[in-house]
Amino acid sequence: MPTYATPQDAEDAFYDALDEQNTEKMLSVWDDSDAIACLLPMHALVQGRGMIETLWRALLSGAHRLDLSVTHIQWIETADTALHLVEERLSGTDGRPQAPVYATNTYRRTDNGWRLVLHQNSPTPPGMRSPGPVPPGP
Amino acid sequence: MPTYATPQDAEDAFYDALDEQNTEKMLSVWDDSDAIACLLPMHALVQGRGMIETLWRALLSGAHRLDLSVTHIQWIETADTALHLVEERLSGTDGRPQAPVYATNTYRRTDNGWRLVLHQNSPTPPGMRSPGPVPPGP
Repeated sequence: MPTYATPQDAEDAFYDALDEQNTEKMLSVWDDSDAIACLLPMHALVQGRGMIETLWRALLSGAHRLDLSVTHIQWIETADTALHLVEERLSGTDGRPQAPVYATNTYRRTDNGWRLVLHQNSPTPPGMRSPGPVPPGP
Repeated sequence: MPTYATPQDAEDAFYDALDEQNTEKMLSVWDDSDAIACLLPMHALVQGRGMIETLWRALLSGAHRLDLSVTHIQWIETADTALHLVEERLSGTDGRPQAPVYATNTYRRTDNGWRLVLHQNSPTPPGMRSPGPVPPGP
């Protein structure tokens, strides 16, 4: 199992694993704990090491390759925890970009380096391409 | 400015502020920092103390009262950081419940108690009422 010296090392491995459809690399990024969770677009909440292993084995064994580009938005980091807000943009099978989604990747410093404890996606409002101005209230 | 001794105290104040449309209470929950962010359903990403103040002043000055019920799903806590996953269910103006959304509230321990650094919403898949089984892969 590789050891990730920084949150960014773990994040690089996460997106490399997606790109390579590499299940073992993907699972090496996640903390070995039941206090982990994954919220993908249009999927149910998945919690705990066992369920997250099942989820990613199913997703990455599929024939549907993800072509994802990632833009960094903001890092919120303390000594033992790191939150990375990113914008993910998925290319459809026809090569046209789809609407971006936000993701927060939260990492925890463990005895075995930095590990992912939460991956949470949030879709962007229709027509949005990047962080915009504050919208009017309801 | 009140001091929140635990992440849960801060979270209670957050949802009380929503319920009471109390802008000052809402702003007392957020960390006084530019390393904070808020991702509401169908809103642009809002980052930093100034923009978050503007956002909540606009939202909470509206006449549209939120009737929100919150269910705890999972806590991921370290000495200085706490992630609370909750399910939020908003009642519509006709009293009928709408689809739930997930939220992650991330708190940081500061010199002035626990403060919110990230509020991120994610909608649930259509027809979902609570965390369900792992879905089939694509």
